[in-house]
Amino acid sequence: MPNGAQALIRTLVNAGVRVCFTNPGTSEMHFVAALDSASEMRAVLCLFEGVATGAADGYARMTGRPAATLLHLGCGLGNGLANLHNARKGKVPVVNIVGDHATYHVKYDAQLQSDIETVARNVSPGFVWTSQVTSELCRDAVAAVKAARARPGQVATLILPADVSWGEGGVAEPAPDIAPPPAADDAAVQAVAAAIKAGGRSALLLGGMALQDEALFAAARIAAAAGVKVYAETFPTRMQRGAGLPTIDRIAYLAEMASIQLKEIDTLILVDAKAPVSFFAYPGKKSYLPHDDCTVLTLSTPAEDAAASLAKLVAVLGAEHAAPTLAPAERPGRPRGKKLTAEKVCKAIGHLLPENAILVDEAISSGLMLSKFTSGAPRHDLITLTGGAIGQGLPNAIGAAIACPDRPVLALIGDGSSMYTIQSLWTIAREQLNVTAVIFNNASYSVLNVELERVGAERIGPKARAQLDLHGPVLKFAQIADGMGVPSTRATTPDEFTDALARALATPGPHLIEAMVPPALSGLKLKLLPHLLGSLDRMPLSVARMLKRKIAP
Amino acid sequence: MPNGAQALIRTLVNAGVRVCFTNPGTSEMHFVAALDSASEMRAVLCLFEGVATGAADGYARMTGRPAATLLHLGCGLGNGLANLHNARKGKVPVVNIVGDHATYHVKYDAQLQSDIETVARNVSPGFVWTSQVTSELCRDAVAAVKAARARPGQVATLILPADVSWGEGGVAEPAPDIAPPPAADDAAVQAVAAAIKAGGRSALLLGGMALQDEALFAAARIAAAAGVKVYAETFPTRMQRGAGLPTIDRIAYLAEMASIQLKEIDTLILVDAKAPVSFFAYPGKKSYLPHDDCTVLTLSTPAEDAAASLAKLVAVLGAEHAAPTLAPAERPGRPRGKKLTAEKVCKAIGHLLPENAILVDEAISSGLMLSKFTSGAPRHDLITLTGGAIGQGLPNAIGAAIACPDRPVLALIGDGSSMYTIQSLWTIAREQLNVTAVIFNNASYSVLNVELERVGAERIGPKARAQLDLHGPVLKFAQIADGMGVPSTRATTPDEFTDALARALATPGPHLIEAMVPPALSGLKLKLLPHLLGSLDRMPLSVARMLKRKIAP
Repeated sequence: MPNGAQALIRTLVNAGVRVCFTNPGTSEMHFVAALDSASEMRAVLCLFEGVATGAADGYARMTGRPAATLLHLGCGLGNGLANLHNARKGKVPVVNIVGDHATYHVKYDAQLQSDIETVARNVSPGFVWTSQVTSELCRDAVAAVKAARARPGQVATLILPADVSWGEGGVAEPAPDIAPPPAADDAAVQAVAAAIKAGGRSALLLGGMALQDEALFAAARIAAAAGVKVYAETFPTRMQRGAGLPTIDRIAYLAEMASIQLKEIDTLILVDAKAPVSFFAYPGKKSYLPHDDCTVLTLSTPAEDAAASLAKLVAVLGAEHAAPTLAPAERPGRPRGKKLTAEKVCKAIGHLLPENAILVDEAISSGLMLSKFTSGAPRHDLITLTGGAIGQGLPNAIGAAIACPDRPVLALIGDGSSMYTIQSLWTIAREQLNVTAVIFNNASYSVLNVELERVGAERIGPKARAQLDLHGPVLKFAQIADGMGVPSTRATTPDEFTDALARALATPGPHLIEAMVPPALSGLKLKLLPHLLGSLDRMPLSVARMLKRKIAP
Repeated sequence: MPNGAQALIRTLVNAGVRVCFTNPGTSEMHFVAALDSASEMRAVLCLFEGVATGAADGYARMTGRPAATLLHLGCGLGNGLANLHNARKGKVPVVNIVGDHATYHVKYDAQLQSDIETVARNVSPGFVWTSQVTSELCRDAVAAVKAARARPGQVATLILPADVSWGEGGVAEPAPDIAPPPAADDAAVQAVAAAIKAGGRSALLLGGMALQDEALFAAARIAAAAGVKVYAETFPTRMQRGAGLPTIDRIAYLAEMASIQLKEIDTLILVDAKAPVSFFAYPGKKSYLPHDDCTVLTLSTPAEDAAASLAKLVAVLGAEHAAPTLAPAERPGRPRGKKLTAEKVCKAIGHLLPENAILVDEAISSGLMLSKFTSGAPRHDLITLTGGAIGQGLPNAIGAAIACPDRPVLALIGDGSSMYTIQSLWTIAREQLNVTAVIFNNASYSVLNVELERVGAERIGPKARAQLDLHGPVLKFAQIADGMGVPSTRATTPDEFTDALARALATPGPHLIEAMVPPALSGLKLKLLPHLLGSLDRMPLSVARMLKRKIAP
């Protein structure tokens, strides 16, 4: 009879969990030893837990199935918390296996003793469980996988005491039944259809699982047939886009601009999404962004099947044969000139993005123009920063590359963001993943300069400025990548960057390109920003829209 | 009248908080802007929150006063959790300022919304508070500082909503009264004295604040006068040692060896310490390490003044004039030979350690011989991994160097450990701290190979082995350091290492030396370890003691 760990791994494999992103310690040694008992389980070592949790997130976004993480007690879980937060906000399934002291050892309050359940609850509100007996461990594991895979997807945390792991008498469980999510019920569909038919300016807001092709086409048919606008949420978990797919604008990050988008909408219809709110609060600004007279309806909740719900709405509206507006195939030209800028990097990416790429966007301020330049590129997936906890991009790229070994992964990361989980590069090298990481080196927490202006923080002195400034020394990402085994290039001109990107995309395997760029918004533009933003909603719509296009995609 | 943030910073300064280790985001922008309003507050930017919290820990260990951290919501706190755990276990004062959304924004569940208080409670069980009103913020801050500075020192977390920070009407508070801790009461002292006088084999176990000179001398006098043994806890928060100070053995990390130390003790007297327990549980092994007939008495609790309590015991025992046994000044010779090993690195450190150095030990398996080789070195402070959450050493070195700008800091770090908070190097470079980091590059989570044997995990296959192995690619720390602005050297022979260390110690400022070493325990030794450990407590004491000396300091 297998021990607990062996039966657990067999149960996870049976339940469809085929990868475990690990950063183990002593209390997980039996789990580690058991890895070789199941050839179907791939184990990927990460040198920091935030890499493991972000990789599990990226993997599940691309497969729809959870990966496992293997974390070392409460501190290991703590290190993984930020990217689990991003997974939670993205409604992404993840199964954490968190090793703990043996059950009888807890009372001694040894050095690594902490309250794991409390930490876990923050990211796993729906499922935190500490197994107590080896014979029940696998039933607990099935419950964890079921919780993770239910809609909406969630982070489930199974705490595994060392003695439950090493104990004899594990009983592996077969694959669980996981019921498919239902479509929205008829009443909800009818109510939405009635609102659309009643006239007025309506918009569908697509989020979560509603940004993949079947749902996108259904929404675009509704738009074509009924004159409904379609928006995507600001930070999609996974969005399919590019030539031949419906073009859908995202709600803007800057609340001031989002308000302009929403000013035109009297009925906002949520599809696996929530009504837009400002990312942060700003003095004197509204948090809730639909205007006061906007009616918000829900077509389908995150617990329901977005594509099936939209299909029902298509049927009720008789939109089956409406021709959706699709993005034409068009790429920007090769960027020119002597000076590399974030905009030119985005342009080069649009110029070269390969078919079927996975684009991970954590470029923050440097990615402002990315949407525009890639909207007509070959079809690709876009993964974004769902929970706002930076340090997500490189780990997500690991998971996406392991999920889709035949697809190129292009990760665009701000310099500040990259440093939270820079250890990712080692795993990318070790697993020889087909990931090209582009680091925008502007030597600044650039977005915070924008935010500093937006929150109206005044009298900025040298100490405050130094907290947003990454000079002294400027990080050298090409060297750091080399130190972790990833071949790297530093690009300082548009030609250097474009050539380096072309080479990287032509050669499968890990690459890092360090793009030396100035901050995307600087000097005068930055000084004007709060005034511009502050007056946006007092401008005529047409002017505001034009300005919006100038400063954001 | 100042805004909340300005009044808060003034209050912190008044209460003795003079450094803030920052990793801010938008919700902290008013705090950042207010930094320039108080010239007494130094702000040190860190590129990852675990660096900030570990730096605050290291700073307080050396000054006895808390630093502040500035963290961005629940995710920022999460990233800082592991090193806050280490501070908690080390009874070290830290004041976290965790920015939060504006109070009115919380209900919208924006992207970065999470339950900060729940996360904080894990490391700040004694003080977690969310300020609600600007006018009361500074009173809340005083309560936080008082909580942190009380004995035992603790982590206090003050959550600062953005609107409380930017709100007008902050009222700075004056310095709080902080009562000094009391000495142990007479009854406790008399009971301990009676037990010692009754004969039998007694030992003092010193922890926490009892490992600094006044307490050490008092304990050594008691040892000399009454034949009492003196031990230090396994992982001291801060321990003063070296030539001219009392020599005190630490309780061994390996429980099997600690049991040998404790076998000889019938009365264990705790001084700001807890009774030794095994770091982890192992199948068939005891967790609680004093033997069954050992009486455990408490001279002073962590809430009491250890030095004053020991002084009372000295007086009751009439030990005032006993001559303590002091470590003689003696250094090992320069290491020789062609092959660099962890032992030779430790020898070179003993050979060269400068007067008044701060030695940060997170070398894990590579540091086995460090204690032995430095016991007669010039007087120095030792900082260790109090909570077992690796990634502490480099951040601690930052804090120690800022606390003691006139003292050299030497941080010994395992390769695996270093990668959790490798971002520390950038802050070391930016602040031009006098830190020499030695990374033991053995391309392995070496201690886990030991632990794998100890927990009796059998049938180890290639996948399991790969989880403990840092080959493929081997990290190149010299390059990584260069990428973060720290001058670096790679040493592959004893001569190269010793020369590099001599140069680094002769040149103030940041240095990194990458020591290319094999794992400290390998091959045959590793295979024999469990058998050796397993039989230790069935051996005659003299043999066990001899063996113990062979495989550990």
